[in-house]
Amino acid sequence: MKNLVQLFSTLGLISLLLIACNTDDVTSETTDRPPNVVVIFMDDMGFGDLSSFGHPTIETPNLDRLAREGQKWTNFYTASSVCSPSRGALLTGRYPVRIGLGPAKGGKRVFFPNSTGGLPAEEITIAEMLKEKGYKTGIVGKWHLGHLPQHLPTTQGFDSYYGIPYSNDMDAVEWSLAAFFRAPDINNWNVPLMQDTTIIERPTDQTTITKRYTEKAVEFITENKDHPFFLYFPHSMIHTPLFASEKFLNTSPRGFYGDVMSEVDWSVGQVIKVLEDLNLDKNTLVVFTSDNGPWLMMQEYGGSAGLLTNGKGTTWEGGMRVPGIFYMPETVQPGTITDLGSTLDLLPTIANLTGAQIPDDRPMDGFNLMPVLTQKEKSARDHFIYYRMQDIYAVRKGDYKAHFITETCYTRDNQRTVLEKPLLYNLNHDPSEKYDKAEAEPAILEELVDLAEKYKTEVVAAESELDKVE
Amino acid sequence: MKNLVQLFSTLGLISLLLIACNTDDVTSETTDRPPNVVVIFMDDMGFGDLSSFGHPTIETPNLDRLAREGQKWTNFYTASSVCSPSRGALLTGRYPVRIGLGPAKGGKRVFFPNSTGGLPAEEITIAEMLKEKGYKTGIVGKWHLGHLPQHLPTTQGFDSYYGIPYSNDMDAVEWSLAAFFRAPDINNWNVPLMQDTTIIERPTDQTTITKRYTEKAVEFITENKDHPFFLYFPHSMIHTPLFASEKFLNTSPRGFYGDVMSEVDWSVGQVIKVLEDLNLDKNTLVVFTSDNGPWLMMQEYGGSAGLLTNGKGTTWEGGMRVPGIFYMPETVQPGTITDLGSTLDLLPTIANLTGAQIPDDRPMDGFNLMPVLTQKEKSARDHFIYYRMQDIYAVRKGDYKAHFITETCYTRDNQRTVLEKPLLYNLNHDPSEKYDKAEAEPAILEELVDLAEKYKTEVVAAESELDKVE
Repeated sequence: MKNLVQLFSTLGLISLLLIACNTDDVTSETTDRPPNVVVIFMDDMGFGDLSSFGHPTIETPNLDRLAREGQKWTNFYTASSVCSPSRGALLTGRYPVRIGLGPAKGGKRVFFPNSTGGLPAEEITIAEMLKEKGYKTGIVGKWHLGHLPQHLPTTQGFDSYYGIPYSNDMDAVEWSLAAFFRAPDINNWNVPLMQDTTIIERPTDQTTITKRYTEKAVEFITENKDHPFFLYFPHSMIHTPLFASEKFLNTSPRGFYGDVMSEVDWSVGQVIKVLEDLNLDKNTLVVFTSDNGPWLMMQEYGGSAGLLTNGKGTTWEGGMRVPGIFYMPETVQPGTITDLGSTLDLLPTIANLTGAQIPDDRPMDGFNLMPVLTQKEKSARDHFIYYRMQDIYAVRKGDYKAHFITETCYTRDNQRTVLEKPLLYNLNHDPSEKYDKAEAEPAILEELVDLAEKYKTEVVAAESELDKVE
Repeated sequence: MKNLVQLFSTLGLISLLLIACNTDDVTSETTDRPPNVVVIFMDDMGFGDLSSFGHPTIETPNLDRLAREGQKWTNFYTASSVCSPSRGALLTGRYPVRIGLGPAKGGKRVFFPNSTGGLPAEEITIAEMLKEKGYKTGIVGKWHLGHLPQHLPTTQGFDSYYGIPYSNDMDAVEWSLAAFFRAPDINNWNVPLMQDTTIIERPTDQTTITKRYTEKAVEFITENKDHPFFLYFPHSMIHTPLFASEKFLNTSPRGFYGDVMSEVDWSVGQVIKVLEDLNLDKNTLVVFTSDNGPWLMMQEYGGSAGLLTNGKGTTWEGGMRVPGIFYMPETVQPGTITDLGSTLDLLPTIANLTGAQIPDDRPMDGFNLMPVLTQKEKSARDHFIYYRMQDIYAVRKGDYKAHFITETCYTRDNQRTVLEKPLLYNLNHDPSEKYDKAEAEPAILEELVDLAEKYKTEVVAAESELDKVE
């Protein structure tokens, strides 16, 4: 028996089992075609906002199941601590500074209703990459990479779009903490809801936004069930102002924020259910993550970074480390992954999974994570750069992170400090960034300083799209 | 069909299923006898130190399994923020102030090697309660309720004892942070290892302490397999100085602290394995929790309270809220429980489970949690008192906690502040205790003030055992 086990092991038992299972469970139609991809992207959800990432009173049974039966990544980074650059980086696999979402002389780090810029047309998104492979591509939710006709999702490889094109707190009649904290009123936020390139509702009835996004996502999957598809599903929640459907109100011990999380979790469950009902679950990679850390200024109406320091808008861990979940039964090997990963890695990972062609005419910042997903090999990503606009505030390599510039919590009177001496933390030992090791580990610090210099020298900042306003 | 379902439901479908399963899987011998109980108790392990409670790099697969297949309690409290009172309360179901472990004029809140006091003989422990029912009772690990002959575990209902009788950092040649932080040397901590009432090794070879405790625990279970038993298994880890067996060194991305947690997790796995091997797992309640929050002064050699504020020695959540895990296949219904629970509740819960008699001649502070464990009913515990020595520093009722006295982190220059105005937090919305609601919720604050007054009036502080020294 021992010899047999060794033999199977040598032959690649896992591969054999996978083939066997696929033959049994998936129609030949789905095995003949490349896998589908669904990316569910949260807005302002923190590292600590899922039950499986340690929140005591937020209930997320569907997401916890994906984290358990798939891979739960605990050192997973979004490429920016705010919305537009984070989204551009996810879709292109390139740091925001390269794609016009870095420099922002006016100080506006995201697009606003008076913006005229957007993700440059020459950038290649995951949607465009997969369209080349014949995928059907859809986006349901928040775009926030330019809302003028020349910047809408349909110009960046998406066949269809349904959603609010920017943040759900924009176009505000009254923009104040009080407005966020009182019972939410859709009329205070005159945001448009778009179908493809047309505004179909304004103000959007945000009370049903998660429900309606979910229905549209399920519809997209159902309509494309006989075809490889890519669904990009960036929720408008859980950015303030918070809204939830009536059936979720007053259901969570975490209060209103928890109610909204419960509806998002329900939504994830609906996506998985339709994949299962259509027998597509084993042929679909589902990714779940967040665009940046929690907006701490929103107090109880904002999220939690768990044990991480600070939140949205900062380059402390709480600003840029987010939950990462990968789920694809029989392909993604279950487990907790403590290696580095990033939303930047989605494009090359998806390219590898689907056989699509990574753009080879420009620098790419992502790494292919498939060997980790399928075989739990060591992650190809060994470092990460924490940009804020065009500046490198911090870098991580392996266990260590060096801060060169820090900022306080993301508020309107944010305080920027260029450090005289960098701070150095061992993030795997000290995820809360408490114990400075700069003096104890000068060689490591030097290596990180060199890494930052390398990026400063080599990365060319593209012309700012954020500074383009009416 | 619908009628049938309703009929079964009325008859108590769950009970029927349970009986069916028991008949199949458990020998009649075990069903005829009351259930066994194993309580695994950590030292200084924080709320955030398990993977399933959100730590990014600590790996605890065995504990995560228990949390998933059993109940994970996220509002679970230890009755004191330091060691001796916490342990006395767990074993008696009474607040430390009632059992001689409250007042400490000398400022020493735990027993030291020169202490002559201990848990008073007239207190009734879980072990004594279960011995009345004919249980075999054993303790493996740290006692810390008096180490003179008249106070050892064998005087408090335990048939056998194997372990270090107090904290593993006592009897120190050099007591300094440097001694904790350098490569641990067993000779610096001249702690005794005891078998029943005899010292069998000194200094204890702490490098193998978790391994040897585990072997003794497995031996106790094996020897008593044909008899109802109670095993109290308080680890000496993960109190500093840290020690781990060689095979666990340099295995965890969390560093040395993670290595030690991995060995503890292995130990839990060994306990579950022997229960399964002996077909006792379905007839044994396993409880896992910690004596207090992390000792933050120990920096990377101490644990993490996760998203909670502060740690050991304080009445902030990080000092007294700890992971709570209950596991008993087919009896404990899997799920995350956000209701209140406490180590104080173990005695009445175990009494209810086993049919033992709760002492009825004295005030008890515990509640029976069996209805939550078996049917996820609402917890009978609706409040909790945060004592520090004889003083009420804070109280919780439902979602809210009021602080009357606060202290800084547990260091030798600890700062105590009697608040002019109490602080009020909604812990389920705001577990990190950031947003004071005292002004917004005066009625709730008043209710909590009244609750504190009631305890101040009614609870009689017993004579101090902690002040008794050579």
